[in-house]
Amino acid sequence: MKKITVTDTILRDAHQSLIATRMRLEDMLPICDKLDKVGYWSLEVWGGATFDACIRFLKEDPWERLRQLRAALPNTRLQMLLRGQNLLGYRHYSDDVVKAFVAKAAVSGIDVFRVFDAMNDVRNLQVAIAAVKAAGKHAQGTICYTTSPVHTVAAFVEQGKAMQAMGVDSLAIKDMAGLLTPYATAELVAALKAEIDLPVFIHSHDTAGLGAMCQLKAIEAGADHIDTAISSFAWGTSHPGTESMVAALRDSQYDTGLDLALLQEIGLYFYAVRKRYHQFESEFTAVDTRVQVNQVPGGMMSNLANQLKEQGALHRIDEVFEEIPKVRADLGYPPLVTPTSQIVGTQAVFNVLAGERYKTITNEVKLYLQGRYGKAPGVVNERLRFQAIGNEEVIDVRPADLLKPEMTKLRAEIGELAQSEEDVLTYAMFPDIGRKFLEERKAGTLVPEPLLPIPTAGAGPASEGVPTE
Amino acid sequence: MKKITVTDTILRDAHQSLIATRMRLEDMLPICDKLDKVGYWSLEVWGGATFDACIRFLKEDPWERLRQLRAALPNTRLQMLLRGQNLLGYRHYSDDVVKAFVAKAAVSGIDVFRVFDAMNDVRNLQVAIAAVKAAGKHAQGTICYTTSPVHTVAAFVEQGKAMQAMGVDSLAIKDMAGLLTPYATAELVAALKAEIDLPVFIHSHDTAGLGAMCQLKAIEAGADHIDTAISSFAWGTSHPGTESMVAALRDSQYDTGLDLALLQEIGLYFYAVRKRYHQFESEFTAVDTRVQVNQVPGGMMSNLANQLKEQGALHRIDEVFEEIPKVRADLGYPPLVTPTSQIVGTQAVFNVLAGERYKTITNEVKLYLQGRYGKAPGVVNERLRFQAIGNEEVIDVRPADLLKPEMTKLRAEIGELAQSEEDVLTYAMFPDIGRKFLEERKAGTLVPEPLLPIPTAGAGPASEGVPTE
Ligand SMILES: [Co+2]
Ligand SMILES: [Co+2]
Repeated sequence: MKKITVTDTILRDAHQSLIATRMRLEDMLPICDKLDKVGYWSLEVWGGATFDACIRFLKEDPWERLRQLRAALPNTRLQMLLRGQNLLGYRHYSDDVVKAFVAKAAVSGIDVFRVFDAMNDVRNLQVAIAAVKAAGKHAQGTICYTTSPVHTVAAFVEQGKAMQAMGVDSLAIKDMAGLLTPYATAELVAALKAEIDLPVFIHSHDTAGLGAMCQLKAIEAGADHIDTAISSFAWGTSHPGTESMVAALRDSQYDTGLDLALLQEIGLYFYAVRKRYHQFESEFTAVDTRVQVNQVPGGMMSNLANQLKEQGALHRIDEVFEEIPKVRADLGYPPLVTPTSQIVGTQAVFNVLAGERYKTITNEVKLYLQGRYGKAPGVVNERLRFQAIGNEEVIDVRPADLLKPEMTKLRAEIGELAQSEEDVLTYAMFPDIGRKFLEERKAGTLVPEPLLPIPTAGAGPASEGVPTE
Repeated sequence: MKKITVTDTILRDAHQSLIATRMRLEDMLPICDKLDKVGYWSLEVWGGATFDACIRFLKEDPWERLRQLRAALPNTRLQMLLRGQNLLGYRHYSDDVVKAFVAKAAVSGIDVFRVFDAMNDVRNLQVAIAAVKAAGKHAQGTICYTTSPVHTVAAFVEQGKAMQAMGVDSLAIKDMAGLLTPYATAELVAALKAEIDLPVFIHSHDTAGLGAMCQLKAIEAGADHIDTAISSFAWGTSHPGTESMVAALRDSQYDTGLDLALLQEIGLYFYAVRKRYHQFESEFTAVDTRVQVNQVPGGMMSNLANQLKEQGALHRIDEVFEEIPKVRADLGYPPLVTPTSQIVGTQAVFNVLAGERYKTITNEVKLYLQGRYGKAPGVVNERLRFQAIGNEEVIDVRPADLLKPEMTKLRAEIGELAQSEEDVLTYAMFPDIGRKFLEERKAGTLVPEPLLPIPTAGAGPASEGVPTE
């Protein structure tokens, strides 16, 4: 009898995936008492895009959110998603910033740090993992799952071993795009479990409608843990529903032991909450298997659609979808996740709209080709590299090795607007909107973006009988 | 290498489950060419509630629909769902009506008849199955899955054997309510395959979010076939998405061989079609695991909600949910499917609203307790039976054994309004609305219920970047 443990993503990834990361603390706190009673292994509550959304849209102090959740959830591990050396921002930070950030997150309430790098370059995880261990917390090393000629099971196992050598407490398989299939999952998990003595966590977005099946096969292959979302924020680009996975495993050798009736109460609570955010509902969150054909993640599809729409070129989206795998191949097959999804997507749009591939090369692609994001998983197109950066230097060290300490400079830049080290880190993550946030806070003018009124219900379901077959 | 075969339910169960059976023939025909190219084992296109909806709401002749689909889908088996001796109506018909109906359905285009009885009383399947065989068509015997103290794996296997003895060509496990769990499915399928040499088909509604996992485990346990729905009409109270199941099995030993890109085109077509029927969308079609706790099927929940709302008693729905299993136990645990779901549900509502159990006993419950629907799976509450019917006769023969031939009488009743045997059968299924339909057809006043205009899109997805994690 192996009890499968569960992380509910409702307070982070679920609303990030379905309503543009807009859930407010005021909608989380009233249900924390019940969430805390479930017996989750952890609740994912912080990191990813939540920090950005707090500052940019909700005008909430993300650190204060974390402290309040910590107080409201005394019996449950709190978990965050951290982009390795990028932390929660979009560039590489110097090591002193990484250390300071992890230390502050730990004292503010984070117990479990899931650390990933968009390139799967473990050198970009090293300092963050060491900082988590120094804080006495759980460090989870992440494999960003993708498919390509170079992403073999053996390569993923090597990455797992490298993270094990760094002292991680567990491994996560992160399928942000919904690319995993049930039998591919089983093969990967079995290989990891055979060679690495660490718990394996499965984070499988249901984008292509395969998430639950992947988790089931992962469990049978030896995985220890699944990530779910309470059902009113589940499925599609989010995760398999918590209640469904609990019901699926109940009375089997993998029973989670969680109380289905309590979970259903929580589900009903969030069902009502979701209505408040109706303006952020999107047509791009439903199950869509196209990623299994064109490998473009759902989040990227909607971003590209918006980008093209703004330029009056939405009708060319299929050309962009065809261009993306080509750009990705030229760059040595990076997984498509922040920030590589943006780097590849934007270059693909340029290649299509300009009518000539690489007529314009973005600054990010140039930096990528200089090695400034880390080592590409495969071999980059050398002709493209020469075209992009000529004879400029290509680095082969860890990118942050070239960065000088920054904390002193950041402290000086933000000055008295920062009332704490946390404020300095907020500014470090988002120089422009972070500064704006701190200014507005000082002026007492922080106002969250408005929520539109909930539309009154329409005619509702037809009132004649619906035969149960 | 075992190729798994697929039935797509898009033209019957999918829209019955999600938009109250309202899809019109005009939205089916334009895509038939592509559907016919997929290589489905069959398309479910007829029966269930479609006949009723055609006559009642769409003012389409269901027989004409079938003939047109037959012509438009020359290369694909067409399948229907038939309620055994109830055919597509709500009472037991005499054998001559059953034979006439099956014969006409066969010549009009049906190749595969999935025949079920709400009580799992195989005597109620016998004449229909014989009629299918007499027409040279595929007879599929159905196990209506439910859970109760008397619904053991052994009992289902016995039912399977009894249907095999009747000459069925295959067996279907029909989980109309979403009660199956993955490991229960595996156990049941393995037992059936071990003892019965017939193909096993899995029809698992995704009501509780377990449908795809159940199918996967069924396949591994030896099932031959799955029922799916093209993704724009999939999931929740409908079926696992066709594209997702095809992707899940692709490149495995169970590969369906279906073309994912072609399926995606079909999915996009129906995505647009679904918008036309927005007025029939319901909040009761999303994944809801409550059936796994209270065993009330989704379709029943929404019917009960409507019934209670009309009486201003919606706030008592939880009491009704608690009463339903008690009524079901009193009746010897019938599966909850048409018509038993209505019989049990309505009596439960009466029991709650009257403030006293069985103060009023419905006529249907009285007939049930007389054996008029067939043999109960378990033992009925004898005290209740006496209270309901006193010393009236309880029959233990097949209910239709007591029915005289009806076709001549039906023909006479409907008279010249019927221009064909099919018209007589339409009248037989639905005496009131069938007659009205034929009258309006004669008068040239058939008008389908109107479709409301499609609302113009709102603000749409937020246009700022959505990080892919
Ligand atoms: Co995620
Ligand atoms: Co069905």
